[in-house]
Amino acid sequence: MNVRVNEAEDPNSLTLRLGSGETLALESGARLDRLQIAYQTYGALNADRSNAILVCHALTGDQHVANDHPVTGKAGWWVSMIGPGKPIDTDRFFVICSNVVGGCMGSTGPASGNPETGEPYGTDFPVVTISDMVRAQKLLVDHLGIGTLLAVIGGSMGGMQVLAWASLFPERVFAAMPIATAAKHSAQNIAFHEVGRQAVMADPDWRRGRYRVEGARPVKGLSVARMAAHITYLSEPALQRKFGRKFQDRDAPTFSFDADFQVESYLRHQGITFVERFDANSYLYLTRAMDYFDLAADNGGSLAAAFARTKTRFCLVSFTSDWLFPTADSRQVVHALNAAGASVSFVEIESDKGHDAFLLEEPNLFATTRGFLDAAANARGVGKAGT
Amino acid sequence: MNVRVNEAEDPNSLTLRLGSGETLALESGARLDRLQIAYQTYGALNADRSNAILVCHALTGDQHVANDHPVTGKAGWWVSMIGPGKPIDTDRFFVICSNVVGGCMGSTGPASGNPETGEPYGTDFPVVTISDMVRAQKLLVDHLGIGTLLAVIGGSMGGMQVLAWASLFPERVFAAMPIATAAKHSAQNIAFHEVGRQAVMADPDWRRGRYRVEGARPVKGLSVARMAAHITYLSEPALQRKFGRKFQDRDAPTFSFDADFQVESYLRHQGITFVERFDANSYLYLTRAMDYFDLAADNGGSLAAAFARTKTRFCLVSFTSDWLFPTADSRQVVHALNAAGASVSFVEIESDKGHDAFLLEEPNLFATTRGFLDAAANARGVGKAGT
Repeated sequence: MNVRVNEAEDPNSLTLRLGSGETLALESGARLDRLQIAYQTYGALNADRSNAILVCHALTGDQHVANDHPVTGKAGWWVSMIGPGKPIDTDRFFVICSNVVGGCMGSTGPASGNPETGEPYGTDFPVVTISDMVRAQKLLVDHLGIGTLLAVIGGSMGGMQVLAWASLFPERVFAAMPIATAAKHSAQNIAFHEVGRQAVMADPDWRRGRYRVEGARPVKGLSVARMAAHITYLSEPALQRKFGRKFQDRDAPTFSFDADFQVESYLRHQGITFVERFDANSYLYLTRAMDYFDLAADNGGSLAAAFARTKTRFCLVSFTSDWLFPTADSRQVVHALNAAGASVSFVEIESDKGHDAFLLEEPNLFATTRGFLDAAANARGVGKAGT
Repeated sequence: MNVRVNEAEDPNSLTLRLGSGETLALESGARLDRLQIAYQTYGALNADRSNAILVCHALTGDQHVANDHPVTGKAGWWVSMIGPGKPIDTDRFFVICSNVVGGCMGSTGPASGNPETGEPYGTDFPVVTISDMVRAQKLLVDHLGIGTLLAVIGGSMGGMQVLAWASLFPERVFAAMPIATAAKHSAQNIAFHEVGRQAVMADPDWRRGRYRVEGARPVKGLSVARMAAHITYLSEPALQRKFGRKFQDRDAPTFSFDADFQVESYLRHQGITFVERFDANSYLYLTRAMDYFDLAADNGGSLAAAFARTKTRFCLVSFTSDWLFPTADSRQVVHALNAAGASVSFVEIESDKGHDAFLLEEPNLFATTRGFLDAAANARGVGKAGT
């Protein structure tokens, strides 16, 4: 494993650095100076710059979507989806994925140095929103000389970004594919996020957000937050199928607080591995961004107004066992798009894998993605793979 | 508010204290000496001792089922259900509720003094199980001179005790009413419990369980545990109806980590009030007892065998929006009881209030309980109220 010390400051990725004169104006009214955006690309941009697909990552994802991760050494989080001949075919498409603003893998976030102090921002970092993430990505797309993206695609928090892209910059999005997402975060989802934040902030090593300056790390709190969140990414049937009440390396209960059950051992492992690669303050900021997301509220209370007169073609996907972003959330977006007269298709995929299904081997998701992107590319006159 | 300092040692309840010669043999093989059981009673035992109903409390409940709580000053947790003229009518029935072994309101548990050291047990307390709780309750029932209980009733962990009573001591249970419960804890429920335990144990003030001796209190960890658990007691529709995305005492987001949303404020309040009345180690032990519960496994893998040849009459209740103990869990018990040839009725109550519905104003639950208990009492020849 190649453990890199500071991906936040010195990422093992391409970077766009804004000059000192350029700032990103945030939805809160704050401004970010000397913004850095870390990103990866796959495939080649064609001559008329019409084959670019922007992938938006989820809460704990990052730009390492189809290459080995520089910290964990593991394969990219969507390597099953992106590559030569894969549903997002890098023989045909130019794929971009950038770390969100507020993240910890090289785009400016709470773990980055505050240019005013030279120290990590910590909780002096301004609260960012999904639309702030999208406006940072647009700076990158502008920088790459791409006018209209062929497609913007992503799941969960990534899907929120897709919706925000299509709403804020409809003329820059030829096709949009929001997966397992919603136009607003539900009360239950805010509640789970708040539990995670309280778990982090309860850890004395959080040091009121100044742990990097003070040489501490709130690993226990962040691990508990991850464990709680991880349950919501799965489904009861999947947990039952994978673990049930099976014991871990034993035949009978120990009558103790050891991880007797496989599901306990699995969860503990999820917590431990997560803290190795993720910044606790980033976790606070990105969960907050999701909580604040409410596209209808941003458009006078009308979700249809968020997509008025859009020419973007949409394909929404949900999964039957996803209880974090249930099908009803996607259907609400579909209704609004229909009311706005948009071109929209919607696929609910039968799966017992819960919210995480969008990251897993789901042949129906692969087929849907391939079909939708190929049709969009054909409609736009993008050449086929190898041509 | 009448804040009592040590309900664990010196409860404001009736107590049964076993002598030094008597011990409770636990399922783990350990033994508890000088057991104390704290309990409340309501109504009067009739002459032929045939009108006694044992109420079993849930994870964070206690024996103060129908009187004001000595620590919080709040009304008892099932005061809507129990009292003169109420569904469990204390004009007709003699109601008993005892704090479970492992609890913190006066029955022997981790906050109690270890007779061997004179200090609180802490994590030297042996792990207890649902059947241990039931065998402690049986000592109390014996002590009260009651042969066969007219009914045993309880929800959630209380319902597990009801099932265990009916399985272990069928001749002592005339009627059994397990509500919103299961014959085994699911993988997802074990997972949520493990998150709560890890939250408690991550708190440095937990002091490896010795916080009482060392004068500390893991209030932050226990509060996080309670917040996570509390979400599972509600339902997504109830959270949406009660809170939605409404702001707390403000009109717009603060772009901070304050409790902007009502649901955040509510959850934080749940955490804060819980730690005032509950012992963190008890929380570990009682969640563990629920995790270990598996009535089929205790009976050679057959749930029907757990109830073989039972003469007890059963009424099971579930709630449509309860995702912690969904209807399928109750149905599994019903199928086993049918296979065992038992007398069983089953009511699934339409409610959007989630698991907590069993504690709330649910007219259908009240009517079902009243009807089932009155029919059982009539069948046993118990005199009517006032006769």
